[in-house]
Amino acid sequence: MKDNQKKFSRLPLKGMEDFYPSDIRELNWIIEQIRDIVELYSYEEYLGPLLEPIEIYAAKSSEELVYEQSYYIEDKKGRKFILRPEITPTLARMIARKSQELKKPIRWYAIPTCYRYEAPQKGRRREFLQFNADILGEDSLYAELEIFKISIEILTSFGATAEQFQLYYNSRRFIDAISKHILKIPENRLPLVYKVLDKSDKMDDPEFEKYVIDSFQDEYIVQGILKLKEAKNLEDLLKKFDKIPKEFYDSEGYNEITELGDIIKEAGISDYCSFSSSIVRGLDYYTGVVYEVFDTGKENIRAIFGGGRYDDLLSLFSDERVSGIGFGMGVLMLSLFLKTYNLIPDFIGEKDYSDVIYIASINEKVANYTIKIADIIREEEFPCIIDYRFKSLKSQLSKASELGVLVTLILGPKEMEQNQVTLRNMTTNEQKSIDYNEVIEEIYKIFDELEDLEDN
Amino acid sequence: MKDNQKKFSRLPLKGMEDFYPSDIRELNWIIEQIRDIVELYSYEEYLGPLLEPIEIYAAKSSEELVYEQSYYIEDKKGRKFILRPEITPTLARMIARKSQELKKPIRWYAIPTCYRYEAPQKGRRREFLQFNADILGEDSLYAELEIFKISIEILTSFGATAEQFQLYYNSRRFIDAISKHILKIPENRLPLVYKVLDKSDKMDDPEFEKYVIDSFQDEYIVQGILKLKEAKNLEDLLKKFDKIPKEFYDSEGYNEITELGDIIKEAGISDYCSFSSSIVRGLDYYTGVVYEVFDTGKENIRAIFGGGRYDDLLSLFSDERVSGIGFGMGVLMLSLFLKTYNLIPDFIGEKDYSDVIYIASINEKVANYTIKIADIIREEEFPCIIDYRFKSLKSQLSKASELGVLVTLILGPKEMEQNQVTLRNMTTNEQKSIDYNEVIEEIYKIFDELEDLEDN
Repeated sequence: MKDNQKKFSRLPLKGMEDFYPSDIRELNWIIEQIRDIVELYSYEEYLGPLLEPIEIYAAKSSEELVYEQSYYIEDKKGRKFILRPEITPTLARMIARKSQELKKPIRWYAIPTCYRYEAPQKGRRREFLQFNADILGEDSLYAELEIFKISIEILTSFGATAEQFQLYYNSRRFIDAISKHILKIPENRLPLVYKVLDKSDKMDDPEFEKYVIDSFQDEYIVQGILKLKEAKNLEDLLKKFDKIPKEFYDSEGYNEITELGDIIKEAGISDYCSFSSSIVRGLDYYTGVVYEVFDTGKENIRAIFGGGRYDDLLSLFSDERVSGIGFGMGVLMLSLFLKTYNLIPDFIGEKDYSDVIYIASINEKVANYTIKIADIIREEEFPCIIDYRFKSLKSQLSKASELGVLVTLILGPKEMEQNQVTLRNMTTNEQKSIDYNEVIEEIYKIFDELEDLEDN
Repeated sequence: MKDNQKKFSRLPLKGMEDFYPSDIRELNWIIEQIRDIVELYSYEEYLGPLLEPIEIYAAKSSEELVYEQSYYIEDKKGRKFILRPEITPTLARMIARKSQELKKPIRWYAIPTCYRYEAPQKGRRREFLQFNADILGEDSLYAELEIFKISIEILTSFGATAEQFQLYYNSRRFIDAISKHILKIPENRLPLVYKVLDKSDKMDDPEFEKYVIDSFQDEYIVQGILKLKEAKNLEDLLKKFDKIPKEFYDSEGYNEITELGDIIKEAGISDYCSFSSSIVRGLDYYTGVVYEVFDTGKENIRAIFGGGRYDDLLSLFSDERVSGIGFGMGVLMLSLFLKTYNLIPDFIGEKDYSDVIYIASINEKVANYTIKIADIIREEEFPCIIDYRFKSLKSQLSKASELGVLVTLILGPKEMEQNQVTLRNMTTNEQKSIDYNEVIEEIYKIFDELEDLEDN
C-alpha cells in the first residue's frame, strides 16, 4: 500500500465507541461492583449468542424496535438474524431448552453487548453494554422486592442516595384495572393505553394531551389517562376519580400495588421507592409490576434503567408457564448518572504502576540476565516491564519515572558478573546493589517503607 | 399467543453457543488465568466496536476471509459493516487515532467476541471469543521473545508441559530470503508462496505436492517448497539445498531466524519452541516472525493459536510506521486443548454454595424479619438466598441441602418475637437458637469448624 493512498477514518462508526485502557478500567470497575451485588444474592452468570432469528424478537417486542431500530443480517438462504437489542428472548429460549433440569427459582444475570439502529443521543449508543438480572419461577411479590433491593443496592453501593435517584413502580395489572373498571376501556385497547402512557415522560404536558386525545377521542378516557400521568401517589390518584366501583378494589392489579407498597415499607426501602401510575415500560412482554429508576435531578431526564414482571415469556418456545421479573441496565446510562454526582473516583481510569517493577539494562549483553530477573519477579506476582532499548540508562529511568513506577532495577555487565541487582527506589532516588536472590525481599522492604510513609 | 401455536426452536443458531452458568464459570476461569499472565507483563485491556467498515478488513486481510467468510450488515445508505472476524484492524485504527498521546511501546490485550460465516468444525464456531495481546512500537526481537514467553506461560499456567504442546516459529522474511536467493522466485509471487505454505499442514503429502505443482509448475521451485514443509529444523533445511548463495546468509530473514533461535535458547524456553519453515500464518498483514502453537498429540490437529509481527499495520489510517507483534487465541480451541489433557478441574463448572447462607422461614408473617437478617448477612459479604415459599420447612431444608448449602437459618414467629435466629449446620444437622446479632459470629464458627474437619 502506497503512503499517498487515501486513508480510512480513524473514528469508530457513529453510535459506537472505542474503549481505550482508561475506559475499560472504568467500565470493569463499574461492572465488577454490580456483579458483586448480584453475587451476594446468589445470581449466576449466563450468556447467549449475539445473533438470534429475528422472529423471536418480532413476536414479543414492539415491531418498531425490531425492523426499524435493529441491525439484522440476511444469510445465504435469506433467513434474517437480529443483532440482539436486548437479551430477554434469548434468556427465554435458554430456559425453555433446559427447563427440565434447571432448578427453580432461577436467579441469573448477564452482561451482553446489545445493538440498536437508531439516532444516537445522550446515554444511548448503537452499541451498548447492558447488565441484566432476572429471577424466574418465583411468583411471590417478594421476588419484586428482591429485584428492587438489588436495583437500589447497585446504586447505593456507588454512594448514590435517595436524594439522587428514585425507583418508580407501577403494575400493568393496575393499569388494566383502572382501564377496565374505572375508564371502561375495552380490553383490546389495553396495548394502546400502555403505548400512550409510555410516552408520558417523553413529552411535555400540552404535547402529551394532544397525543392522548388523538389516541382515544373519548373525553372521559382522555381525562383519566391524564390523571394517571399527573397523580403524585396512589391516594392522590384514586381521589381524582369520582366513583370507583367495588370491582376495582377487588382486582388483582389494585391489590398487587397496595401489597407491594406495604412490602416496600416494611423492608425499609420506601425512601428509595415511589408509586407512579404513568410507568408502564416500552416492551410488549411485561404483564405485572414494572419499574424505572430515575435521576431526581435535571441532568439525566431518561430513566437510568428499569424492568418488570413477565408471566408468559417462554410461550414462544414451550407450553410451560414460567413467570419472572428482571431488569436491564445500560452501563453507559449508569455511568452518566454516577458522573453527574461525582461517584466515579478519578483514579479509576488511571493505570496503577505502583506495584510494577521496571527493569532497565545498560546493554543488550545482559538481556538474558534481565529476563531471568524478570521471571523471578513475576513468579512472585509483581508485574514487570523490561525496557528493550538496552541503552541510555537516563532515558530508561525517566520513562520509569514518567509511568509512576516506584521500583526500578538496573542491570549491567557488572551486576550480571556478580549475580547482583541494582535496586532504585524511585521516590527517594536511593540505589543499592544486592545479591539477585535478595531482590524480592528488598522490593517488599521498599513497598513497606512507602506504605509506612503514606500512613504517617 | 395461543398455546397451540407453532413453537420456535430452542437451539441457538448453527455455529453459535448458549453459555449456561456452568459454561460461563469455566470460561471466566480460563479468561482470568490468561488475564493474570498478561497483567504480569503489564499489558492493558482495550476493546473496540464489533462493527467496522468492511473496507478496512478487505484491504489488509485475505479477501476470502472478508466477503465469503464474514457476516456483514448493509445500512440504510448501502454502506457495508463487518462483524469483526478479528480485532487487529480495530487495534490499528485505535492506535492511529491517538498515536500522539499513546506512549510506546504499547502493551495491550483484548477479549473480543468475533464472527466468521463458515462451516463450523471442531474448535471453530461462527461466534467465538478470542484473546489478543500485542506489543506495538517495539522493534527489538526481544518483543518476539516476550510474546513467545507469554504464549508459553499461558499454557504452562494451566499445567501443560513441553510434551503436550510446542510453539513453531518462522519468519516471513526468512521465507522471502529462501524464495529470492535460493529458489529465485520473483518478488510478486511471494504472496503465493505464503498462501501455498499456509496450506501445508492442512493437506496430506500427495495432496500438498499436487497443490504446489499446480501453483508453481517449475520443478526446482516445487522441490524447494516441499523441502520447506519437510525440514525438521534450520540445519536440516539448509542441508537440503545444494548451493546457497552468500546473499542468503547476509539476508535480514536468515539473520532474524538465527538470532531469534539464540535468544530463545538463552532465555531457557527452547524446550517449548521449534523452528518450522512451513509456518507462515494465513493473514496478509504479517511481515516478520510468525508462529503457531500446536498440540503435540493427535487429538487436536489445528493450531491452538498463533501470531506474528506486522510492520505496516497503521498504513490504512496513518503515514506513521509502527511495528508490532501479537497473537490471537481462540478460547474454545484453548479449552479443547486443556480438556484433552484434563487440565480443567471438574469443580470449575459447578456453582460453589459453600459460603451461601440459605434462609428458610416458616410463614409469610416473618418475611420482614427474614429480609432484615438477610441484609445483615450480605452486609458481611456472605451470599444469601431467601426461600420465598414461606411454608413446609422440610421442603425448604431439602432444597438447601440439594444445593449443597452448609448453613441454613430457620426463622419463625418465635424467633422473630425473641429477636433470635435458629441456625442449622447442614453437615451435622445440629441446630441452635441464638440472638440475631450473634448470627455472623456463629456462621464464622461453623465455617471454621468445617475447615478444621477438612484439614484433618
